[in-house]
Amino acid sequence: MKKASIVTIGNEVLSGQTLDTNAAYLGRKLLSIGIPAVSCYTVGDEVDLIVRGLELASGDADLVLVTGGLGPTGDDLTRQACAKFLGVDLQLQDELLQKIRKFFAMRDLQMPEANTIQAYIPTGAKAIENRVGTAPGFTACKNDKLFFVMPGVPVEMKQMFEESVLSRLSEFAGKQAVAVRKLKCFGTGESKIAELLGDLCQRGRNPLINCTVRAGVITLDIIATAGDKATAEGMAEKDEKLLDGLLGELVYGRGEQTLAEVVGKELAKQGKTIAVAESCTGGCLAKLLTDIAGASRYFKQGWVTYSNSCKSSELGVSADLIEKHGAVSEQVAEAMAQGVKKNAGTDFAVGITGIAGPTGGSEQKPVGLVYISLGSDNGCETRRFVISGDRELIRLRAAQTALNMLRLKLEV
Amino acid sequence: MKKASIVTIGNEVLSGQTLDTNAAYLGRKLLSIGIPAVSCYTVGDEVDLIVRGLELASGDADLVLVTGGLGPTGDDLTRQACAKFLGVDLQLQDELLQKIRKFFAMRDLQMPEANTIQAYIPTGAKAIENRVGTAPGFTACKNDKLFFVMPGVPVEMKQMFEESVLSRLSEFAGKQAVAVRKLKCFGTGESKIAELLGDLCQRGRNPLINCTVRAGVITLDIIATAGDKATAEGMAEKDEKLLDGLLGELVYGRGEQTLAEVVGKELAKQGKTIAVAESCTGGCLAKLLTDIAGASRYFKQGWVTYSNSCKSSELGVSADLIEKHGAVSEQVAEAMAQGVKKNAGTDFAVGITGIAGPTGGSEQKPVGLVYISLGSDNGCETRRFVISGDRELIRLRAAQTALNMLRLKLEV
Repeated sequence: MKKASIVTIGNEVLSGQTLDTNAAYLGRKLLSIGIPAVSCYTVGDEVDLIVRGLELASGDADLVLVTGGLGPTGDDLTRQACAKFLGVDLQLQDELLQKIRKFFAMRDLQMPEANTIQAYIPTGAKAIENRVGTAPGFTACKNDKLFFVMPGVPVEMKQMFEESVLSRLSEFAGKQAVAVRKLKCFGTGESKIAELLGDLCQRGRNPLINCTVRAGVITLDIIATAGDKATAEGMAEKDEKLLDGLLGELVYGRGEQTLAEVVGKELAKQGKTIAVAESCTGGCLAKLLTDIAGASRYFKQGWVTYSNSCKSSELGVSADLIEKHGAVSEQVAEAMAQGVKKNAGTDFAVGITGIAGPTGGSEQKPVGLVYISLGSDNGCETRRFVISGDRELIRLRAAQTALNMLRLKLEV
Repeated sequence: MKKASIVTIGNEVLSGQTLDTNAAYLGRKLLSIGIPAVSCYTVGDEVDLIVRGLELASGDADLVLVTGGLGPTGDDLTRQACAKFLGVDLQLQDELLQKIRKFFAMRDLQMPEANTIQAYIPTGAKAIENRVGTAPGFTACKNDKLFFVMPGVPVEMKQMFEESVLSRLSEFAGKQAVAVRKLKCFGTGESKIAELLGDLCQRGRNPLINCTVRAGVITLDIIATAGDKATAEGMAEKDEKLLDGLLGELVYGRGEQTLAEVVGKELAKQGKTIAVAESCTGGCLAKLLTDIAGASRYFKQGWVTYSNSCKSSELGVSADLIEKHGAVSEQVAEAMAQGVKKNAGTDFAVGITGIAGPTGGSEQKPVGLVYISLGSDNGCETRRFVISGDRELIRLRAAQTALNMLRLKLEV
């Protein structure tokens, strides 16, 4: 199986000013065509650092994708470094120079002299057109290793990759097909999932099953490799069914689906409506629900009852109840949900109250304590959670947990 | 000058499933304390690949920061690889095991056996506490190179870095020579800012001024390099004053400040309160305001009046008004703000109504059209905006624009 390595060039990436979205994009694309990235080297804007990056990358892989440093300024040194690595000189390509002049002319501008350097590529390399910017990319070969050098500007790199590089790579990959399936889970931790899947998560297994977690959402990637696409798809599908069977209701969706999307789809399908009242999550839950285009079909109304008095004035939560049990209690969460259902007249109602932190916690009621009450025509189901994380994560996970309770209630 | 290198461990990063935000975060932090990252190595979940990454990184730098692979599953191999690299065995630390058991107990759960591995660290290494998750980090030394190994989960890594690593690094840096200032702006586009700053943004200038944009927020990084910290700080401060003078009220804050933070601080300082009603932003504005710990000092209440009927039932917006001008109109935005002020009795009130898209637009009322009304004791000030972007961006930018209107009203 052919392997790839990625080289990201740029001081601004090392200093954290720019997030390396290019490497993630290329990693995904490479995986989908069956030439997985086995390493990624981020190097600074110096010829020798770039040369070393190219050497390390070509030691790991058959294919090297390089981004960055093709601009017109003094710190754009990728061309020079590639020429040095390939053991050749840079060569001015008149056709490329004309294209760059034309790019400026079309915008009623004259090409700054500095952009001339962009018309130079290593002798023997082939230029790759950049339809979105001025810097052409180029491709070259050394010791049977294939190199593609592209701009660092994401929109320019993606267009170049999609239009001119991707098709050449599919040929390069040869007889090799990859199929990917993605399961989304919520409701337990990573270790529990690993326990349920056991040997299936072994490295070296084909399909490979990769488990990642983010804000309580567990993503299981099933990556199947085979001699042809149909076989790979069949293997991935088989594993998908297997995991579905093992994980049951922990699985809430596929691909890039969010809980809000899945819940919204089901509410719309069943013709049901929902309203919510939030305290500690402060708008997060309403925002997640309304992130989905068309949410107005099912989401009618939300309250952010941040102060105790408005829990009473808006939702009819008795001041005595708050006094007796505290704002963060099962009783208040339930009273909030009941108030929502009564006022909004929706099929479902949610009340959330908790301690988002970082302050406000105590022995009995720690930071992360959240009560979520889900009201329906059958009454209210209220649950207690202690959620880990910082304020941002606690709020997000609490809102996601409410969506998950609704999902299970809707039996999606 | 001391140098650093970053090692990111994880197949999910190479395959592009996960964006490497950790490296960017660490890169920024390292720059700010004068130990710039000179390289970053992204490696897969295999002992020998990780060992090689550690070897390359320690060849480049005096300080190596490692993230990832400290989970409890079979593909978490960072501990084993570090032990191999350091030439020692892993050792079970009973104190760490007790902490992990306690972490689960506090959530009324029993520790899965798999998590036991997280209590092992290389012999001779020092454990670093993880207050947010189960995996402790650790620090070790080899050949005068200093290593810090942290979890890959961003919130866990950041807490650990901020609380336990950063202070040790400032000592390690010694004679530091980089000073960074950051200005945050809102209210215009990147090209206008570039126009106002002119030559100041030239590459090669010291201090260097870097401009980045995200969701309408423009960040200007001023990076000054000098022989000693005091001189660098002086240079950065001088440029900060210069930019302040040129940009005036476009500048809303410094460092990592968000609009919500700045507005919240001022509201608290002035002893003022606020309540909001949102339609198209669906909870975004309330969420931004309540993202700030202590928001209850000034934020009292929010409504998400998603359906037209609840604009009337909750806020007293007349059905005739909605019929006549449409829900997305200056008149309805103002009526929403008035309803909020009346019902919540706060000093400030916001009403937002608009078209978040992707559907729902027309010739007269395009996607991105948003009316924001800011009510105070002096009446309501209502403005019309047409915001670019997809649904997510339109909603976020509309909420940010409301915060900016409030900021200018509060004269911050």
